[in-house]
Amino acid sequence: MKLLISNALIVPMTQEGTYFRGDIGIDGKHIVFVGEADPGFVADRIIDGSFHIAMPALVNAHTHLSMGLMRNYKDDLPTLQAWLGEIFPIEDKLTEKDILIASRLGLVELIQSGVTTFADMYFHPQASAEAVLETGLRASISITLFGSLEENKTRVFDRERLLSPYVGRSEGRIQVDCAPHAIYTCPKETYQFAHSWAKDHQAILHTHLSETMQEVQDCLKETGKTPLQYLLDCGVLKDVKSLLAHCVHLTDTEVELLKGLDSTIVHNPSSNCKLSSGIAPISTYFQKGISVALGTDGASSNNNLNMFEEMHVASLLGKVYKPTGYTLHPYEVLSMATVNGAKALGLEKKIGQLKAGMEADILLVNTHASHLTPLNDPFSALVYATQASDVDTLLCQGRILMEGRKVMTIDEDQVIKDAQKSWAEVQQR
Amino acid sequence: MKLLISNALIVPMTQEGTYFRGDIGIDGKHIVFVGEADPGFVADRIIDGSFHIAMPALVNAHTHLSMGLMRNYKDDLPTLQAWLGEIFPIEDKLTEKDILIASRLGLVELIQSGVTTFADMYFHPQASAEAVLETGLRASISITLFGSLEENKTRVFDRERLLSPYVGRSEGRIQVDCAPHAIYTCPKETYQFAHSWAKDHQAILHTHLSETMQEVQDCLKETGKTPLQYLLDCGVLKDVKSLLAHCVHLTDTEVELLKGLDSTIVHNPSSNCKLSSGIAPISTYFQKGISVALGTDGASSNNNLNMFEEMHVASLLGKVYKPTGYTLHPYEVLSMATVNGAKALGLEKKIGQLKAGMEADILLVNTHASHLTPLNDPFSALVYATQASDVDTLLCQGRILMEGRKVMTIDEDQVIKDAQKSWAEVQQR
Ligand SMILES: [Zn+2]
Ligand SMILES: [Zn+2]
Repeated sequence: MKLLISNALIVPMTQEGTYFRGDIGIDGKHIVFVGEADPGFVADRIIDGSFHIAMPALVNAHTHLSMGLMRNYKDDLPTLQAWLGEIFPIEDKLTEKDILIASRLGLVELIQSGVTTFADMYFHPQASAEAVLETGLRASISITLFGSLEENKTRVFDRERLLSPYVGRSEGRIQVDCAPHAIYTCPKETYQFAHSWAKDHQAILHTHLSETMQEVQDCLKETGKTPLQYLLDCGVLKDVKSLLAHCVHLTDTEVELLKGLDSTIVHNPSSNCKLSSGIAPISTYFQKGISVALGTDGASSNNNLNMFEEMHVASLLGKVYKPTGYTLHPYEVLSMATVNGAKALGLEKKIGQLKAGMEADILLVNTHASHLTPLNDPFSALVYATQASDVDTLLCQGRILMEGRKVMTIDEDQVIKDAQKSWAEVQQR
Repeated sequence: MKLLISNALIVPMTQEGTYFRGDIGIDGKHIVFVGEADPGFVADRIIDGSFHIAMPALVNAHTHLSMGLMRNYKDDLPTLQAWLGEIFPIEDKLTEKDILIASRLGLVELIQSGVTTFADMYFHPQASAEAVLETGLRASISITLFGSLEENKTRVFDRERLLSPYVGRSEGRIQVDCAPHAIYTCPKETYQFAHSWAKDHQAILHTHLSETMQEVQDCLKETGKTPLQYLLDCGVLKDVKSLLAHCVHLTDTEVELLKGLDSTIVHNPSSNCKLSSGIAPISTYFQKGISVALGTDGASSNNNLNMFEEMHVASLLGKVYKPTGYTLHPYEVLSMATVNGAKALGLEKKIGQLKAGMEADILLVNTHASHLTPLNDPFSALVYATQASDVDTLLCQGRILMEGRKVMTIDEDQVIKDAQKSWAEVQQR
């Protein structure tokens, strides 16, 4: 199948300031040209890109897909800990089937906001993997660890076996990573086990870190160290790629230490604000050359999985909470949600930019809208004015997941119905 | 014409926590019942409210409608002053026709995000008033003052004459108010003239205040006073209703002084962040009982007129930037965008709540969406998860302005085309 996206305003995310009008050729899973059409390319199908921006599909680098069931539930509690106290007992009641249904719900949301790739951390990961295969997205599915070393050894062994067939069937779209939940739910030994597993499997270590001042203070009290320093001293960030969700409260010393690591900070601004955790100083991180990606966190602390909204919030916070003289540009915010997310997941050779040879994960924004008129600077337009609902078309690995706002790979109405039923049942348990 | 909205989830904004399923009856311009249907009411038309939330239409309490032409243009300058330095020369080139076209563009945006009522501050106000009549919204159109007393006397006399026929034809939907732009563009005498005009006409005094630290420091240097204290001492906030846009940097003393005034602070969080002006401490204002409404400011500092986005940003900032122990609830954020906005404009007996006897300014949110499933708490859903694109239907004074996302009162495609042409011409001048 050869697909041509014609006459689009292309934002390839290859370089700041670069955009041009042109065509994109797709042969099977891959992009074959971007800009000037190859005269020998005969398309089976042409998508008219006029009145559209074409850009790389987005990467949601930290989420808990299935938490959508607890959307708009137990909001406005004073702290992260108070909220977790309400959420954990509900999570204990979720079955594998609930997780499958909630994953489908989350995947519809991701598609509708232009996301093809996400990093998930949750229970029953095989259920999420199944939903990923059904809907055609791309995922880092983590084996999530809580508690003692012993229970996690069994858990990892068990989950590896369950996830393996999904990876096999995913045509390279599913990778299995390892996620010790947080330093306040996992002892040092669990982190060290996760680290050695990740090293052996060339997998990513994905964790929550330095999300609240409470976490920092507790860590200082118990270990005499700040959270990142503590993990470093446990040896669990060395020789491994890591995804550090939140990093709201890093010290200057910790920021310096990050430079020597293969780590990416995942900024989750809506969740951090909504839970009153604080504002991660991403403009400072950018200024210091730290890699920052973007995530929505779970829908129960957000309360949706809308990466355009997240870019918008990240840009606003990054402009008001910043070192003197530094300006966070829309290109940097777009980078967080594309190239930086791809790099964080080790996928920078496949996705995150529009270039010949890369896999075709592309989104089209319909710019024929009052709120995008006049368009003027497309980077500003994408970050400050565009809505998720402006995403018209989404491709993952060359396959059309959504077109004209219609999700093609799953029945949205059925997903909504199932999720309502599932949530009603959970509440009865 | 009798209209029935049947079986909706009604959020009347009459009291925190109150919502119920029911019907809304509308006879002509007015709501005749909310909740249980009057058995004697025979509707000419029924709108099925199932799968919808019905709530008061939104009030955008501070905007510059026609700045949409400069959307996504000259962004990311270091300060408000640097940005104004780029924008003012462009504004000098705008003709009355440009303003008419840009107003129509802005009105389409307002309709599409559920707004029926707005407070505008701009040049050629008669052009904006004309667009308001065409599209069927409701507005406080201000006569905007810049510079010396002498030029403003002529300006006010002139604008009053031009605006008067529009007010006459508006069936109570247009009011003329007075807007000295800011303390750094208007001398004391201009404010005093505006004040006496507003008092004589029972009009509102609408102004920018305490937007940046620069403004505060300059005011201290020139007058020895902080901006609000300065205006108070000029006598221009006494015996008049005032709309104070921004108030990012009020001192504790100023906050106390506000309590004795008939003033509303208009919070414009996106604009304040984007221009790096700061974050207005609205949770503190709420805690102290100060009335706070919500606005988008102009689309060139936002970069759209999306009040759902603005509620979302306000709620996030209000949760992270707050006095200890205070939690800003979604109901308060919804109040800013409805009842508080209505009160600020002296319209609290007409709009801002759904009650029998009030005028029918109503919006319907389509909740059949993945990102609103499950719905759970409707207040959380509206503030944290809902998108402007979920607004399906909008009524103003009983008239349907939008239904099924289609704007009924103006041709959106033509508006977009005209705005593009107008902006291209402005740039050529
Ligand atoms: Zn998380
Ligand atoms: Zn303004």
